[in-house]
Amino acid sequence: MKNPRVNGERIWQSLMEMAKNGATAKGGVCRLALSDEDKAARDLFVQWCKEAGCEVIVDRMGNLFGHRRGEDESLPPVVMGSHIDSQPTGGKFDGIFGVMAGLEVIRALNDAGVKTKAPLEVAAWTDEEGSRFPPCMVSSGVFAGEFTLEYGLSRKDLNGITLGEALDRIGYAGSVPCGARKLGTYFEAHIEQGPILDEEGIQIGVVQGVQAMRWYELHLQGQDAHSGTTPMDRRHDALGSAAEIVLELEGFAKKFGPEARATVGLITFERPSRNVVVGNLMMTIDLRHEKDEVLAEMDAELQKIVSAAAERRGVKPMLDPIWICPAVRFNQECIDLVRQSAESEGYSHIDIVSGAGHDASYIAQVAPTSMIFIPCDKGLSHNELENTSPESVRMGAQVLLDAALARAGRVL
Amino acid sequence: MKNPRVNGERIWQSLMEMAKNGATAKGGVCRLALSDEDKAARDLFVQWCKEAGCEVIVDRMGNLFGHRRGEDESLPPVVMGSHIDSQPTGGKFDGIFGVMAGLEVIRALNDAGVKTKAPLEVAAWTDEEGSRFPPCMVSSGVFAGEFTLEYGLSRKDLNGITLGEALDRIGYAGSVPCGARKLGTYFEAHIEQGPILDEEGIQIGVVQGVQAMRWYELHLQGQDAHSGTTPMDRRHDALGSAAEIVLELEGFAKKFGPEARATVGLITFERPSRNVVVGNLMMTIDLRHEKDEVLAEMDAELQKIVSAAAERRGVKPMLDPIWICPAVRFNQECIDLVRQSAESEGYSHIDIVSGAGHDASYIAQVAPTSMIFIPCDKGLSHNELENTSPESVRMGAQVLLDAALARAGRVL
Repeated sequence: MKNPRVNGERIWQSLMEMAKNGATAKGGVCRLALSDEDKAARDLFVQWCKEAGCEVIVDRMGNLFGHRRGEDESLPPVVMGSHIDSQPTGGKFDGIFGVMAGLEVIRALNDAGVKTKAPLEVAAWTDEEGSRFPPCMVSSGVFAGEFTLEYGLSRKDLNGITLGEALDRIGYAGSVPCGARKLGTYFEAHIEQGPILDEEGIQIGVVQGVQAMRWYELHLQGQDAHSGTTPMDRRHDALGSAAEIVLELEGFAKKFGPEARATVGLITFERPSRNVVVGNLMMTIDLRHEKDEVLAEMDAELQKIVSAAAERRGVKPMLDPIWICPAVRFNQECIDLVRQSAESEGYSHIDIVSGAGHDASYIAQVAPTSMIFIPCDKGLSHNELENTSPESVRMGAQVLLDAALARAGRVL
Repeated sequence: MKNPRVNGERIWQSLMEMAKNGATAKGGVCRLALSDEDKAARDLFVQWCKEAGCEVIVDRMGNLFGHRRGEDESLPPVVMGSHIDSQPTGGKFDGIFGVMAGLEVIRALNDAGVKTKAPLEVAAWTDEEGSRFPPCMVSSGVFAGEFTLEYGLSRKDLNGITLGEALDRIGYAGSVPCGARKLGTYFEAHIEQGPILDEEGIQIGVVQGVQAMRWYELHLQGQDAHSGTTPMDRRHDALGSAAEIVLELEGFAKKFGPEARATVGLITFERPSRNVVVGNLMMTIDLRHEKDEVLAEMDAELQKIVSAAAERRGVKPMLDPIWICPAVRFNQECIDLVRQSAESEGYSHIDIVSGAGHDASYIAQVAPTSMIFIPCDKGLSHNELENTSPESVRMGAQVLLDAALARAGRVL
């Protein structure tokens, strides 16, 4: 008996409809976690879940689950999902594709009148990007027990607003405990956000796991001084140290291999002024590698770079490691099921390691988990020009349907 | 007949009282132009002027003048002043010392019952620092005809509020035309904001002029990209180019001599995010040298540095020169009068060129002008630890009294 077909046109339309929430002039999306735009997209998702016959569960972290009943409701659900929030300069597919793919699976099963033994769910995790409330994946992290609920709700944005306050404001502070229930399986479909599938012309990435990540906040304390009167050789310019660190980090790939990544995404100035030598600043640092042991070496090297750059200018450094996410290896059965599904649909596929973190990284700690990647143009993501094709979207959703149906058990 | 003595204790007390407006935890002052703190300090200044028998004039740019009548009111006034606003991490003396010194001269003449032929005025110029509404010295610039009134009132802070709106908000948008009247002389007393007087143990700096300045805003456009998936060698990181420029500018003193200054005071990120390679940023650049021709060479070198740093990373630069202030030479008679006053009081003195811009730079275009410097500890300024001594404050005010009295003409 052949599995039902997903409706490629419908999922594409749903993605385009969702992209109106936070649409930017350059064709991308700015839908920061728990903003008005995020609320509007959540409202639409909830409406669509209900129209597809799902009960909607909202937990304490604002995670959303559209629940489709199974024949045996005592079985833990097979969950498909990702996130609705975006980067400030995000695209139309990062995150939301996995949510819409999960919804499309449910819609397609409804159309075909197919029932499952275990219940199915489509999930949307709060604040995956972490760009408003760092660290990222905080709500799947709370679900998986990596963080406490208190930690999650007390994360702050740059204006000092907590995640909990922002949830209250948009009316998505649910009453269901976060993470108290068991998930049978978790599948997350996502764009690759890297260039490999696109360059090699491969249709599906069978994701083996996720690279390790470390996030830091580095505070540099130099000395405020007048820009006109202070000779260059008497300055303690915190920005000079910061600049040196930015450039040294660019050399990481040479030292630790092409899989190494190091990024300074932003610098904040305690009291910015054009004609004052910079006294105090904070810069963020994001280090990644697929091997935990290499990332630990990168961490040691970072410490050295920071100390040397600060010392040269008489600047005082305070390096605060705010988040460590070890490398993740997904469940072998789930990985194999994704590969078999792609194979049986006749889609080309390769095994791949994710360069980006995903909610699946944390959920993998509490449920058998794997991911499905589809190509995106030139690997561009966290960019308003992020793009993929309707065909890729359809194929990714079909593999998700096949894998989820196999795990949930087809009844009818 | 000996000139009246200024009251050292009174001027010090006035400075300490003023420092309460915008006082910071570290002992400095944050009194941004036209903020609530600036308004409170202005209110106090106006009250003190009135108590000293002065009429208070407020012009369209919010510049304040406390007018003490002369025997011949048809003569243009001898004006003493500086500014009330401060840097975000400012000290208790920058600007406000010159205003309080002017007020002390009037108070001391009142105490001694001394009248002058020409009227005397104590002036406070709006937004000298330019750290809230760039460029700096904008209101003395309008007074001197360097900028139009429309230009001055339409300057914006980082929140998009105009200087005109901010003046209205605090009730200091005066009705008197800015710059329509003639000044007889302008004397500005100020802390040196550099290390020379302090290091050499000299009591008074006889200021010859002000170094030339150029301000720029540099926009760098790279490409937003995912920090986890984008290999280091495929990035177009605008912050990488910015960092290179910061470090190259540090080398200016080596190339153009110890008088050269180059400062990047702040960077703004179009859409800051920790896990996105920086796509778009703006950085400020402040170049200074006491010789216009050397500054022009520095400008040419900057253009080269920017182009090279941007090109190396495939980043697009847009260098916007927002302000040029040529080197200033003060009026020789006024310079000599300051030197003679210091000499006759028995204070040690040297000739000096100002490394910082001052309202005197613009006023020198429309009136005979010079400045009086006093030492500040270690040359530290634009810093909350900025400091000077009650003795220095007293001596600076005394020289101001002697010079102003000579120019205005003692009657009684």
